[in-house]
Amino acid sequence: MQENIQPVKGFSKLSKDAKLEWLSDKYLQDGDDTIELIKSYWHKDAKTQQLHDEFIENTITNFYLPFGIAPNFMINDTLYCLPMAIEESSVVAAAAKAARYWLTRGGFKAEVISTKKVGHVHFSWNGDTEKLQKFFNEIKSQLLASTDDITVNMRKRGGGIVDIELIDKTLEEPNYYQIQGTFETCDSMGANFINSILESIAKTFKAELANAKSFTTKEKEVSIIMCILSNYTPECIVRSEVSCKVEDLIDGDEMSHQEFTDKFKQAIRIAQKEPYRATTHNKGIMNGIDAVVIATGNDFRAVEACAHTYASRDGQYRSLTDVEVKNGMFKFFIEIPMALGTVGGLTSLHPMVKLAHKMLGNPNAEELMKIIASAGLAQNFGAVRSLVTTGIQKGHMKMHLLNIMNQLGANDAEKEKAKHYFKDKVVSVQSATNYFYQLRGIKNPNLVTKK
Amino acid sequence: MQENIQPVKGFSKLSKDAKLEWLSDKYLQDGDDTIELIKSYWHKDAKTQQLHDEFIENTITNFYLPFGIAPNFMINDTLYCLPMAIEESSVVAAAAKAARYWLTRGGFKAEVISTKKVGHVHFSWNGDTEKLQKFFNEIKSQLLASTDDITVNMRKRGGGIVDIELIDKTLEEPNYYQIQGTFETCDSMGANFINSILESIAKTFKAELANAKSFTTKEKEVSIIMCILSNYTPECIVRSEVSCKVEDLIDGDEMSHQEFTDKFKQAIRIAQKEPYRATTHNKGIMNGIDAVVIATGNDFRAVEACAHTYASRDGQYRSLTDVEVKNGMFKFFIEIPMALGTVGGLTSLHPMVKLAHKMLGNPNAEELMKIIASAGLAQNFGAVRSLVTTGIQKGHMKMHLLNIMNQLGANDAEKEKAKHYFKDKVVSVQSATNYFYQLRGIKNPNLVTKK
Repeated sequence: MQENIQPVKGFSKLSKDAKLEWLSDKYLQDGDDTIELIKSYWHKDAKTQQLHDEFIENTITNFYLPFGIAPNFMINDTLYCLPMAIEESSVVAAAAKAARYWLTRGGFKAEVISTKKVGHVHFSWNGDTEKLQKFFNEIKSQLLASTDDITVNMRKRGGGIVDIELIDKTLEEPNYYQIQGTFETCDSMGANFINSILESIAKTFKAELANAKSFTTKEKEVSIIMCILSNYTPECIVRSEVSCKVEDLIDGDEMSHQEFTDKFKQAIRIAQKEPYRATTHNKGIMNGIDAVVIATGNDFRAVEACAHTYASRDGQYRSLTDVEVKNGMFKFFIEIPMALGTVGGLTSLHPMVKLAHKMLGNPNAEELMKIIASAGLAQNFGAVRSLVTTGIQKGHMKMHLLNIMNQLGANDAEKEKAKHYFKDKVVSVQSATNYFYQLRGIKNPNLVTKK
Repeated sequence: MQENIQPVKGFSKLSKDAKLEWLSDKYLQDGDDTIELIKSYWHKDAKTQQLHDEFIENTITNFYLPFGIAPNFMINDTLYCLPMAIEESSVVAAAAKAARYWLTRGGFKAEVISTKKVGHVHFSWNGDTEKLQKFFNEIKSQLLASTDDITVNMRKRGGGIVDIELIDKTLEEPNYYQIQGTFETCDSMGANFINSILESIAKTFKAELANAKSFTTKEKEVSIIMCILSNYTPECIVRSEVSCKVEDLIDGDEMSHQEFTDKFKQAIRIAQKEPYRATTHNKGIMNGIDAVVIATGNDFRAVEACAHTYASRDGQYRSLTDVEVKNGMFKFFIEIPMALGTVGGLTSLHPMVKLAHKMLGNPNAEELMKIIASAGLAQNFGAVRSLVTTGIQKGHMKMHLLNIMNQLGANDAEKEKAKHYFKDKVVSVQSATNYFYQLRGIKNPNLVTKK
């Protein structure tokens, strides 16, 4: 393949059709058919497709994530239907199941603890820290004033810069200091806002320092290393919890409520103590969180990075959820930092994002934090409940059954039969495949007799 | 809104149309228009749409993520064009730019260090650890043999169970032990494979223990807490690096190569030492990684959780990339664990996932690990390079300009003018908005004069 391929220059400036032609010629080798396939994923309305194309560079088509909905989420006495964009087969099913479970047990109670965001001007300066601190205090109001243009609209909405402070980091790295800004960004995620402010502050700081009368030539020099918001926002944090009487925990008779409670508590303690488990435990939480984060047009990499750093904040990577059983009451909760926006970014551009917001009653950022934290808690409850009772594979593979059948080329009738057949059986790729070939009365080409 | 809404039962069993009707009636209030909008996002071919619907539960439509491509990635002397599914405006542009930069400097050199995955049967047992260990050794071959049915196909492909061992965790939690399995899952991500094996081993272990002749009644009892793979796979790990002479680092004349190198090194040291920065630094890496992970049908929550836990492995959350400057050579590298699949899951079902694999030359899992690690390294290089030179906002907002213009309702001609106007200016939401209103010759309704 490679002989054919040369580096390409100015690719982003090519038309979409020219990009497709190049791609097909260099990397796909079967020409029109593949281009037709790619185009079949375009929105039928050209203006709508253009909107989606312009979100990023070099867009060739749309990547479909399944957009599902999970009803019956009672959060702070409001009944929500959650929009979830996710490719994993069992996530929406598990969310809906957990929502339904807690619906009859009081639902989710969520609160935002705080909403402060942070960013830093990282710089290198060689001199006496006290002298710098004194200078910083003197010019602080000028630094703030220099951002007026950028902050004016945010201030009208009740946000803006909460504070800026000088932080001495010279113990960690010679000559290293930060100007740390704290921000209230209201209903916007705030990344662009914060970065623009920090770049502006750095510029003013550098200029003021160059003019500082009492500073030597050397002291007037500063190297601005970088200006950047932090995606770690431990002070932009939300809590959600569910609770009920221990005796109300069990629906069926597969397990006593005491055994369930004991195993559930053990599972959570293990996720608190054992990083191998904590990673997977938190991954399950993020299944629910990311699905709603994506559907509402937020940045899941930011939410992920923040959550996992928070999980490791005391020096060991731990579970983000915890459980408490006291006086016969079972309480399960999550505390998780997340920076979300309900304005800006894609929120008012992407038609399906707008739909997701509408479905949620057009929440503000704090309401969305509560909804998403509850989605994560629900997902985790569902996973841990399955793990300590039936095992995770039963529910997961039940949802994956259709995918396996589709892969084998099953028709609708065969899929229906498979669903019926596996109602009370554990699905595995192997068992589903065997069933399929049995159904068609042909030999499974992969079947190997036990040695 | 809420008076109208009652919990819904058996929702997943409703037809797609009935689900849409319910959603519209309860949460959308404007009936046919919204349903039409939702349906306009369906694939025009009903069979294709059904395939996408069946990936998860309660699918109502497709969530479009922009599917972009980043050409010019030279990785181990092969020239790749990367498929990237991502909503953030500057990610593909930055990846392509970094790829082009390193193309003329030798490209990326990547290697897989190891590919072992792990999973655990977590259980509670009360008794003498040595006695349990002895018993475990005795039944180990039976435990392994009990999984023959599940492992037969994987063994044919060269994988399977590498080992199982008993781990004493009683110091962390009374009576807590693990059977830790180590697995080679070849080109599949392996989650279902590992979980099925663990559940099978647990069943056999429990049965064997109940029959253990030398054990007391109490010792014969075991509580299987849970069986689950770990998404933390520090032994399934890949490394990618770029390197060149320090003097070849600089293209233009904005900065000397010495200043660039110093600032770049400082930026990386800060990301190694300061969790507030490390979070954002790694978030940027994941921008590149997740975009390819999603496009190739892999599970980005698993990749995220693993990467971030690894970043905190020594007790402090740190950068996943590092830099080394020695003998006039600049070397920048990433070491990151990730569990990927190129078979199973969505890889052979989702037409755009299949396209992504094809575009990459249908790589196996190890090749895909190398490609994705290189995407992360490229993304990070681009971000840090921008941060220590022009600042991050210039490039980022340039890409976001079209989104702002679309939000304001700009037409194609206006967008072209804006692109031209901002060629050499820093874009902010404010400046772009002001420009737009100026262009139309009307008063900016949001404009506030400086106080």
